[in-house]
Amino acid sequence: MPTPEISRRINDRIEELYERHLREGDDAVSYYESGRGYYGPELAAEERNRFAICLVSTDGEAYCVGDHETPFALQSISKVFAYGLALADHGRDHVLKHVGVEPSGEAFNSIVFDERNNRPYNPMLNAGALVASYLVRGADPVEKVERLLEILRGYAGNESLQVDYDTFEAEMSAADHNRATTYLMRSQGMVSGDVEEILAMYLKQCSVQVTCRDLAVMAATLANGCVNPITGERELPRRHVRDLLSVMHTCGMYDAAGQWVFDVGVPAKSGVSGGILAVIPGKMGIGVFSPGLDSHGNSVRGVRVCEEISERLGLHMFATEAEDAMIGAAPPG
Amino acid sequence: MPTPEISRRINDRIEELYERHLREGDDAVSYYESGRGYYGPELAAEERNRFAICLVSTDGEAYCVGDHETPFALQSISKVFAYGLALADHGRDHVLKHVGVEPSGEAFNSIVFDERNNRPYNPMLNAGALVASYLVRGADPVEKVERLLEILRGYAGNESLQVDYDTFEAEMSAADHNRATTYLMRSQGMVSGDVEEILAMYLKQCSVQVTCRDLAVMAATLANGCVNPITGERELPRRHVRDLLSVMHTCGMYDAAGQWVFDVGVPAKSGVSGGILAVIPGKMGIGVFSPGLDSHGNSVRGVRVCEEISERLGLHMFATEAEDAMIGAAPPG
Amino acid sequence: MPTPEISRRINDRIEELYERHLREGDDAVSYYESGRGYYGPELAAEERNRFAICLVSTDGEAYCVGDHETPFALQSISKVFAYGLALADHGRDHVLKHVGVEPSGEAFNSIVFDERNNRPYNPMLNAGALVASYLVRGADPVEKVERLLEILRGYAGNESLQVDYDTFEAEMSAADHNRATTYLMRSQGMVSGDVEEILAMYLKQCSVQVTCRDLAVMAATLANGCVNPITGERELPRRHVRDLLSVMHTCGMYDAAGQWVFDVGVPAKSGVSGGILAVIPGKMGIGVFSPGLDSHGNSVRGVRVCEEISERLGLHMFATEAEDAMIGAAPPG
Amino acid sequence: MPTPEISRRINDRIEELYERHLREGDDAVSYYESGRGYYGPELAAEERNRFAICLVSTDGEAYCVGDHETPFALQSISKVFAYGLALADHGRDHVLKHVGVEPSGEAFNSIVFDERNNRPYNPMLNAGALVASYLVRGADPVEKVERLLEILRGYAGNESLQVDYDTFEAEMSAADHNRATTYLMRSQGMVSGDVEEILAMYLKQCSVQVTCRDLAVMAATLANGCVNPITGERELPRRHVRDLLSVMHTCGMYDAAGQWVFDVGVPAKSGVSGGILAVIPGKMGIGVFSPGLDSHGNSVRGVRVCEEISERLGLHMFATEAEDAMIGAAPPG
Repeated sequence: MPTPEISRRINDRIEELYERHLREGDDAVSYYESGRGYYGPELAAEERNRFAICLVSTDGEAYCVGDHETPFALQSISKVFAYGLALADHGRDHVLKHVGVEPSGEAFNSIVFDERNNRPYNPMLNAGALVASYLVRGADPVEKVERLLEILRGYAGNESLQVDYDTFEAEMSAADHNRATTYLMRSQGMVSGDVEEILAMYLKQCSVQVTCRDLAVMAATLANGCVNPITGERELPRRHVRDLLSVMHTCGMYDAAGQWVFDVGVPAKSGVSGGILAVIPGKMGIGVFSPGLDSHGNSVRGVRVCEEISERLGLHMFATEAEDAMIGAAPPG
Repeated sequence: MPTPEISRRINDRIEELYERHLREGDDAVSYYESGRGYYGPELAAEERNRFAICLVSTDGEAYCVGDHETPFALQSISKVFAYGLALADHGRDHVLKHVGVEPSGEAFNSIVFDERNNRPYNPMLNAGALVASYLVRGADPVEKVERLLEILRGYAGNESLQVDYDTFEAEMSAADHNRATTYLMRSQGMVSGDVEEILAMYLKQCSVQVTCRDLAVMAATLANGCVNPITGERELPRRHVRDLLSVMHTCGMYDAAGQWVFDVGVPAKSGVSGGILAVIPGKMGIGVFSPGLDSHGNSVRGVRVCEEISERLGLHMFATEAEDAMIGAAPPG
Repeated sequence: MPTPEISRRINDRIEELYERHLREGDDAVSYYESGRGYYGPELAAEERNRFAICLVSTDGEAYCVGDHETPFALQSISKVFAYGLALADHGRDHVLKHVGVEPSGEAFNSIVFDERNNRPYNPMLNAGALVASYLVRGADPVEKVERLLEILRGYAGNESLQVDYDTFEAEMSAADHNRATTYLMRSQGMVSGDVEEILAMYLKQCSVQVTCRDLAVMAATLANGCVNPITGERELPRRHVRDLLSVMHTCGMYDAAGQWVFDVGVPAKSGVSGGILAVIPGKMGIGVFSPGLDSHGNSVRGVRVCEEISERLGLHMFATEAEDAMIGAAPPG
Repeated sequence: MPTPEISRRINDRIEELYERHLREGDDAVSYYESGRGYYGPELAAEERNRFAICLVSTDGEAYCVGDHETPFALQSISKVFAYGLALADHGRDHVLKHVGVEPSGEAFNSIVFDERNNRPYNPMLNAGALVASYLVRGADPVEKVERLLEILRGYAGNESLQVDYDTFEAEMSAADHNRATTYLMRSQGMVSGDVEEILAMYLKQCSVQVTCRDLAVMAATLANGCVNPITGERELPRRHVRDLLSVMHTCGMYDAAGQWVFDVGVPAKSGVSGGILAVIPGKMGIGVFSPGLDSHGNSVRGVRVCEEISERLGLHMFATEAEDAMIGAAPPG
């Protein structure tokens, strides 16, 4: 538990970081501005300017700045938790038979498969995420979605998380590429059953709304070995924690995953709505929300903020030194 | 510094591991058996049965079993050190302009390039390794090779490391794919100058002979922040240590890199001659040598041994527990 | 009009050809034996041994041997006629905007598109054929299918041609790859509307049943500038005849199209049910039916028979000599 | 033999065609303007404006307009004749083992191979053309080049054809992509021996200089069953004429081959220096020379002129009517 003085200084640093990146702006286009999702042009423009940063330590301290209470859709960040649930439901070997753990160098919506093993390359690409959702146990689609919601609520320590049905419907009506991906997989025996049902399951999971604060708590839960630092509840069997973090580490940032490991060096996952969840094992979770996207589909500001936090706190997994502690140091420039 | 009692127990464990994997055998074909390199059929068959395991801790304690004094060519493992030298010579930004850090899902000899940035995907694939060697500074090819040899000797703490010219000549005469790769890169402006010279530089580096013990010391140097634990010499500026480990982590095991991170969870590099170098940051270096290869070009026994060591010592980077310490526990089964 | 004597000699030659290829057998697997379509194992085995050859001259003389009254599904051969109807409905320029005329070197079910022009490569691949069917005019799906049936009946001079609904239903239930292809195209704006409707239209067209005799009359109609030599009816505006024959010529035999042009040298189209339709412009149409398929999806016997007919009658488009006339010459061997 | 009146009218038509296309201009960039070859900027600009059209009938009448005496390098058009020589030297089956006849949908410099058969897709792509040159018989490189020159002189009926060594040297010094292609093929056993020698052979053949008139005579020789209509000499055994025309037909215009067959409908080959050679079997040869290139590497004006000639004379191989004879009709517009 940090002293009030230290807490104050952390807060100051994050605010400085927030203010500076807010001023610098970014001219990237957001998912919704590019005509996707259910937002009309006005809402898209408003949404576009959202920006929030939250850190939550593994002992439950939270530091938040900006629009940290604005809800947004989890989108691809949900892939992490669905994959974890599939691992818990079936074990490592069974899940590996259905979806690999190999970065493919391909974009998020790639329909290139691991032909040698007749499976998608990894569960952080859409194809593999569809398989992971499909693997989640449940008597029927309602129960499957309910189980997924429950686990997301557990990670976030927030019982009010819900599917946003406006988002879901917008996603369903623009889902032809994912629909095609699923039919391709069914034609090759990678999934079976009702494709619309698989798709709906996956897109409901993508449409769950969180705040940036929720995101940081979810990250902190992952950082804390999948025990929520606020509720004290375990959300994933201990033996699968490393599986989840490993796959996030090599595949979480799409076809920029290698650069992210090089620059930031911590397991993370981004979503097309502008969120990034980053995990500092044993230390803290980071959530950033800023909708402008780069060419890989990652939040421009989110990447920059995480890079700077990692650099200044010496959080890179292979850092040999904590260059200079964020808490005490003066801001750059 | 471990007590004599602990050292004895570590030795016992490694010997048990060695004996068990030796008995189990493997029916994989080696690089030399597949008709490559300079070995005739008899030598290839003899070479085929070599097997050694060495651990060297970051305080310099060494534990070796099997053919740990048998020399073999570094092959692709040399890519790590040439890339480090290029980083030290030019800095991160310059090197990144010429070779990326992105896993590509492609095999080691892929001629698919990162077209957006007109560069090879990463320095652990042949194409990127050729560029890294090409970037190493030196007034002439002799000086470049000499600098590379010096750095390899430094990592290994072994002044006697040399290019094996039989290996080199065999490699040069079977180098058409690498030659084609280099001409392709020259045609696209990724390298310039004499292709045969670039190739010779690269293949000399691949032909440096080490023992499994050397390999483990090199790994321990990496684990020790690039300060050789035996000589106390720094081999790479501190700021590039994380660069090297990051790239090994995401790209070191070819198109099985993701599975390796999932299963073993430490930075590593394999070579086609059957060596694997694995790094446990802050703790130790591991060298394994066993020439039978899997379909990715990784040593079959090497992968299994590293998996088991990682599992039993809880070395996986994202392990939340040291399941049961190798030192004290009984062997499985 | 040939003399009775010449007709007799042609008949003799075709019978010799038939008997010889029947005796030689072929061990290729048929579409139905590979578990596709609605046939049970027994029917598939029976179907497997069907074999028929028909020639119909542009003045309406027909020469048929073997199972020339056995009905089978047109399958991909229908692509030719749907493409023709789309051309007649919209003109060359409009159709070219939606589907190209370029051989792609890809297999029949390729989902690689001509990205520069955002369209399938050609209408003889499944993707392009789905677009061509989609383009056929009609107030509703019923009218569109009816128009297609009408045109097929016209080419065949056979008012009884019908969709076989057992085939259609079997195809619909195994259509995931085509379904995925259509969703992919819809996601990229190449088609719009109800995917199941587009698919049903296409698969009904594939499920129209013909005999080998029908096939040869359809080929003869194409050979006769799209005027049916028996009914005297024009089936396609004169200006599109060359469009149809050109596309058949470069793209009709899947990824073996170039070899076919080289060896046989006439416009042709094959179907997975074992039919081949070949066109000798100004002279005659050829139909062959034999279900065993090669690795490209072309009838093994069909290819051999066409090669031999072309060779012996000097029908190759670029032949500089009619080597020796089939009508008068002795059989080989 | 046309009457003087008909000859005059043909001349008038070609001149009208020439004048019109000259006036319309084209803004495409030429090979030399894009910095290739040995031309400095001034010469490249001068070269850029060349334009010539020649028709030579199979009875030897020639009609030429524009810069028909300006020499230019044959470049890829030479591939046709080297392939013919390889066929004559080894027969169809042997040559097919080493290079296929399948259009691949790939660009002229593709390094994608027909893996099933371990060969380049076809001899009109650079890879396949290198193999065809390599197959040409000869005691040594000098003799091989001499034989190729002889055959080119034979087709052109012009004993003065020579390698232009300025072009050759410029090509050799910019040949890294072809060099890489050849090393790739050697690494896969598709060729053997000295790569620089194979490359030099191929690039000498590409550097042979012709005029547009030569080109039209070469085309007329092909149209005349490979008997030069002026000298009366046979340049290729009769049985291989159809092989040559077939491959030109499906593969001659790079990845625009299908569109060319659709639009123009005659066997043809283009070269990067701006030449197009088109063959109307039994009737005439066409040569066009105009260096501005489209995105496929084909002469922009060359394609347009051939399209118009084919259209107006009804030369399309599958034309059902000669729409209106060029000789007698008024010019459009």
